[in-house]
Amino acid sequence: MQKRNSTLILILLTLVVSTTQAKDPLPSWNEGEVKQNIVTFVKAVSTKSSPNFVPKEERIAVFDNDGTLWTEKPIPIQLSFALDRIKALSSEHPEWKTTQPFKAVLEGDIEKLKESGLKGLMKIAFATHANMGIAEFKKSVKEWVKKTKNSHTKTRKLYKGIAYQPMLELLAYMRENGFKTYIVSGGGIEFMRAWAKELYGIPPEQVIGTSTKTKFVLKEGKPMLMREPALNFNDDKEGKPVAINLHIGREPIAAFGNSDGDLQMLQWTTMAKKGLRFGLIIHHTDAEREWKYDRKALAGRLDKALDLAPKQHWNVVDMKKDWKRVFADIK
Amino acid sequence: MQKRNSTLILILLTLVVSTTQAKDPLPSWNEGEVKQNIVTFVKAVSTKSSPNFVPKEERIAVFDNDGTLWTEKPIPIQLSFALDRIKALSSEHPEWKTTQPFKAVLEGDIEKLKESGLKGLMKIAFATHANMGIAEFKKSVKEWVKKTKNSHTKTRKLYKGIAYQPMLELLAYMRENGFKTYIVSGGGIEFMRAWAKELYGIPPEQVIGTSTKTKFVLKEGKPMLMREPALNFNDDKEGKPVAINLHIGREPIAAFGNSDGDLQMLQWTTMAKKGLRFGLIIHHTDAEREWKYDRKALAGRLDKALDLAPKQHWNVVDMKKDWKRVFADIK
Repeated sequence: MQKRNSTLILILLTLVVSTTQAKDPLPSWNEGEVKQNIVTFVKAVSTKSSPNFVPKEERIAVFDNDGTLWTEKPIPIQLSFALDRIKALSSEHPEWKTTQPFKAVLEGDIEKLKESGLKGLMKIAFATHANMGIAEFKKSVKEWVKKTKNSHTKTRKLYKGIAYQPMLELLAYMRENGFKTYIVSGGGIEFMRAWAKELYGIPPEQVIGTSTKTKFVLKEGKPMLMREPALNFNDDKEGKPVAINLHIGREPIAAFGNSDGDLQMLQWTTMAKKGLRFGLIIHHTDAEREWKYDRKALAGRLDKALDLAPKQHWNVVDMKKDWKRVFADIK
Repeated sequence: MQKRNSTLILILLTLVVSTTQAKDPLPSWNEGEVKQNIVTFVKAVSTKSSPNFVPKEERIAVFDNDGTLWTEKPIPIQLSFALDRIKALSSEHPEWKTTQPFKAVLEGDIEKLKESGLKGLMKIAFATHANMGIAEFKKSVKEWVKKTKNSHTKTRKLYKGIAYQPMLELLAYMRENGFKTYIVSGGGIEFMRAWAKELYGIPPEQVIGTSTKTKFVLKEGKPMLMREPALNFNDDKEGKPVAINLHIGREPIAAFGNSDGDLQMLQWTTMAKKGLRFGLIIHHTDAEREWKYDRKALAGRLDKALDLAPKQHWNVVDMKKDWKRVFADIK
């Protein structure tokens, strides 16, 4: 009995020591103002004796996805998925060989595809994302993510490897300090749910995104949710605070984005209520390791939010300077 | 040191003993098939060695609100709120004295109010639920719930006391066994969020309901979410599985309802996938302690779901027989 008790105490002591000797939770972040601000904020809201302490259930952090958690260049990953699916499904659709915008996709004619505009893109989106059950759609995304070689980044081979390592560390660090991490993205909600848990540790109920209309049907007596070829909600710009409220019903205390699509989410998080808040914008400044773009970009345009950042005390990550490493090394 | 260790062991032993001597977690449920089925199901999915074990994160239970967690008679509580608000706001709206359906509400003329139909009800709903910020709306609900005397039930005086005691016990019991409990109701999502945590222990992010269109605006530089006088989503019937998927992104393994408005939620929960599932319908059979209604009721009509219950092995609670006590005793 005596021996067992001593062992118990030893375990407790080891726990205490290992906690105080904790390693740097953000090893891929270079030392500097942004990293310091992150740590200071997280400590301030999660330390019980702090004047800025926030109860655990209110420690809500929202993250944009494209360009914030993973790369969005040269084209958004979900568009890449759609184009690949058109090719994969083309044998079932012989008419696509002669119909735009499908013909352009099959022939790899990017200029012709661009000419088809938003209307063309919607046709591609619905042909690959709708008129099927949610389970079936998710399966197609999962398989694609698993198998597809990534032609987009300079260092990684699989789509799973295009997540930003510093952001994976940040997600984990915030969760270790009691934060609930949510994705709030213009990307498709079911598209992201297919891999968000595995890649980011974010469960489906914490993924918020753009959605198609969905219909409950009984198919041969079995209940199904069918994806309809129509937009239900566009989770971008003014839509983000609306979706945050609908899904969470609480105001986040920290928001992370990289474009003007995240402007209203940053405003809603940092300016609506009193109390310590945290806003962060990732500025893509690294043409060598990733991409360099901001005010003139088509996807991920960062203009107004960049101008407002200093006044609102939003942190601006200079990717080239602040990140020791860009991409995650997930096999 | 020796003494401290002994104390530690004593505490641990006490914990073990008190757990094994646990009290009945459902004291307001009479012994019988339904109570037995609840306990058997909860044990089967939460016991690690059980062949029907379900990991904690998948233990999702969905509960209708009106008629399932609290009473909905003689009129739904949210309608009662709306009617009270019309009276409270009438001094700011002198035109209501001569305009229907407001005139009927102010004069307590129920027949005249009924004549105004769904269109009239929508006018009342929007006059009391829209054209204001979400924060302001929630505040008005919280105050009403706190202060308003309840003219509806036979035993309780405040609205908070009209929750069903057996269901409060069931919510707590399921949560103790690792379930995440969600409300999925035709009631207004923000209306319910204003009191769901306090009354049921259900946090805002686990409340799903009907919503109005919401708009992000900057009012004098301050971000706000405004409730618009238009329906965004009707969380009833076929809408329930759609909303469950949108908000949770997982299939529930247990569903609790009381009307045909819950039919599709019960089907989606119990018939879509393999594995042990649980469906339960509360049948209002107690005219003395609560109300007696089913196939012909206007609000809370239970007809098709009651017919399908035996074939789908849905449990049917006979309120008169199965519940030892009906209303919660919350002061």
